[in-house]
Amino acid sequence: MTTRMTPELSALIAAVQPADAAAMQAARARQAQLTKPAGALGDLEDLGVRLAGVFGSERPHPRGVAVLVAAGDHGVAADGVSAYPAEVTPAMVANFLADTPAGPGGAAVNALARTVGAQVYVMDAGVNADLPDHPALIRAARQRGTRNLRQEAAMTRDDAEALVLAGAALARRAAEEGADLLIPGEMGIGNTTPAAAMTARLLNLDAAQVTGRGTGVDDARLAHKVTVIREALARTDTTNPLDVLAEFGGFEMAAMLGMMLQAAALRRAVVLDGFVEGSAALVGVALAPALRDFLFPAGECAERGHAAQLSHLGLKPMFRLGLRLGEGTGGVLAAPILLSAAAALREMQTFEEAGIPG
Amino acid sequence: MTTRMTPELSALIAAVQPADAAAMQAARARQAQLTKPAGALGDLEDLGVRLAGVFGSERPHPRGVAVLVAAGDHGVAADGVSAYPAEVTPAMVANFLADTPAGPGGAAVNALARTVGAQVYVMDAGVNADLPDHPALIRAARQRGTRNLRQEAAMTRDDAEALVLAGAALARRAAEEGADLLIPGEMGIGNTTPAAAMTARLLNLDAAQVTGRGTGVDDARLAHKVTVIREALARTDTTNPLDVLAEFGGFEMAAMLGMMLQAAALRRAVVLDGFVEGSAALVGVALAPALRDFLFPAGECAERGHAAQLSHLGLKPMFRLGLRLGEGTGGVLAAPILLSAAAALREMQTFEEAGIPG
Repeated sequence: MTTRMTPELSALIAAVQPADAAAMQAARARQAQLTKPAGALGDLEDLGVRLAGVFGSERPHPRGVAVLVAAGDHGVAADGVSAYPAEVTPAMVANFLADTPAGPGGAAVNALARTVGAQVYVMDAGVNADLPDHPALIRAARQRGTRNLRQEAAMTRDDAEALVLAGAALARRAAEEGADLLIPGEMGIGNTTPAAAMTARLLNLDAAQVTGRGTGVDDARLAHKVTVIREALARTDTTNPLDVLAEFGGFEMAAMLGMMLQAAALRRAVVLDGFVEGSAALVGVALAPALRDFLFPAGECAERGHAAQLSHLGLKPMFRLGLRLGEGTGGVLAAPILLSAAAALREMQTFEEAGIPG
Repeated sequence: MTTRMTPELSALIAAVQPADAAAMQAARARQAQLTKPAGALGDLEDLGVRLAGVFGSERPHPRGVAVLVAAGDHGVAADGVSAYPAEVTPAMVANFLADTPAGPGGAAVNALARTVGAQVYVMDAGVNADLPDHPALIRAARQRGTRNLRQEAAMTRDDAEALVLAGAALARRAAEEGADLLIPGEMGIGNTTPAAAMTARLLNLDAAQVTGRGTGVDDARLAHKVTVIREALARTDTTNPLDVLAEFGGFEMAAMLGMMLQAAALRRAVVLDGFVEGSAALVGVALAPALRDFLFPAGECAERGHAAQLSHLGLKPMFRLGLRLGEGTGGVLAAPILLSAAAALREMQTFEEAGIPG
């Protein structure tokens, strides 16, 4: 494989620059003046300061929230690494778009997004099916699923990079339509296998350390999954981030990588959901270390390997609710916490304004 | 002290009945049919089922959120148990009601409540000051602060019970004005000392096991605080819940106890914020064990002793963000998680509805 990339992708990576240090310093100073004991808002205080850095203001005001769900299929699913058949992927895409009594979409992410007022975008990044036409479906697929990473590269570099750019385009659209907090989400039967392979290679860990039960495989299938991933890793020793993505990844990871890079380039916050999202983030920070400044992990998910990702990123999750669904669901739950952290920093009175002895 | 109570309080306690077991069973069955792997929504699934029990429907639909902040002063503050002077209590009440560019209220709870669309109610439960008139201030004080629990009963039983009923009245009003999730909150310099004394007695623990740094006392003051609490506990060996409240508690705890009992009697959910709220909840479950069915702990707060309260209640918090502010702030952060748990249970399609092989 080549390590050259398209000029467009190169430019996107170069556009990811560190958060605004001056705004963060001003926010920290403001935080100390607000009508509360120092540190009493716990992690919300650090989140507020980081949001100040993202939005370049000591009083950050993020408003819109969007969850961008990319769906893709995986050749490795044929190897029996998931508890569900691959046919569930297109069925869930239809579910994301379904007309229901409660509104558009009958999946968990739709119900949660309605609750917090988040916009949902659904992208076919590479589903192995004829998806019926739907006005809200964003069609970006170049292939009907990846090849089997156990035997060969999951994607060509060309296809992988094209999906990164498609993800970036969707993030630009969501930002133009008002999103300040962007939540990449995913659906793809079998996709914790590529995510574990990417994580193992990028963090230089053994497959067993980062492979979990996904949507719920038993012990025997978990052992098989580890074997499949070890065989994949044995095929090539590349550590080039985009090659790791193409060799072991999936189209939805490529799309989410593009969303993250573009959101950061536009100085928007990325709410990082679970393990599969994390595998895309690892590629992202390898390509553009400043991306880290724009990432806000939601919860620690139940999937093994997520903790290793978060530890590598040096970022603390907001909750541990045992979620292992994907779709961006954890990110949607985290959005009100981030909006609240910004609101406290922005709207609270200082001791002086309130006439309180500090 | 007497262990007889007013008929009105007796009736309130009797009105707290267990959650609807049939609705919970139906919700559990429905949960298993929804378009997600079994258990993939983690703790949200159990929260959804519990909300079904509260609202008596397998598809619960809580809407309005209200935070009810009770403020009170504490005679024991004169003993130097807090990092802040007692004058901060009335100043913070003014801050809760202040006219600010962002809207009414300049405290953390106001900023967070605006973010999630929660209504804020502010009650003077017993502040030691002439509070200026304000149309939104609910006046329920019978005393200007408690007496010093180190030396004598903090409140008379009459005063304590009157505040319980005042809290219940405010909860009724909030429910009539649309609140389905009620968040008791508090402000009162020194109030982690009475909360620790109540917790120690009701859980039969030593003062040192449940006494923390509150808004931030140093080691010396923490040791002093433990001594003060031990002296208070040595005054009387009562374990009668209302006597424990009157002997060691505060007016804001009494008011919050009333809010919790009334919310449960009205079949509304109570979002339980921190350690001081927890001390009122311990009295509540001692009086009416079924109250537990209506309590939803927000986060585990940083105050020592909170974990012991939660363990006694047998309830799991939703997050651990290191909050130690009170005011109901943690409860406000938890509200969107609860609304989301209900929405997932209510609005997701079943496998059959979505035409997906389960």
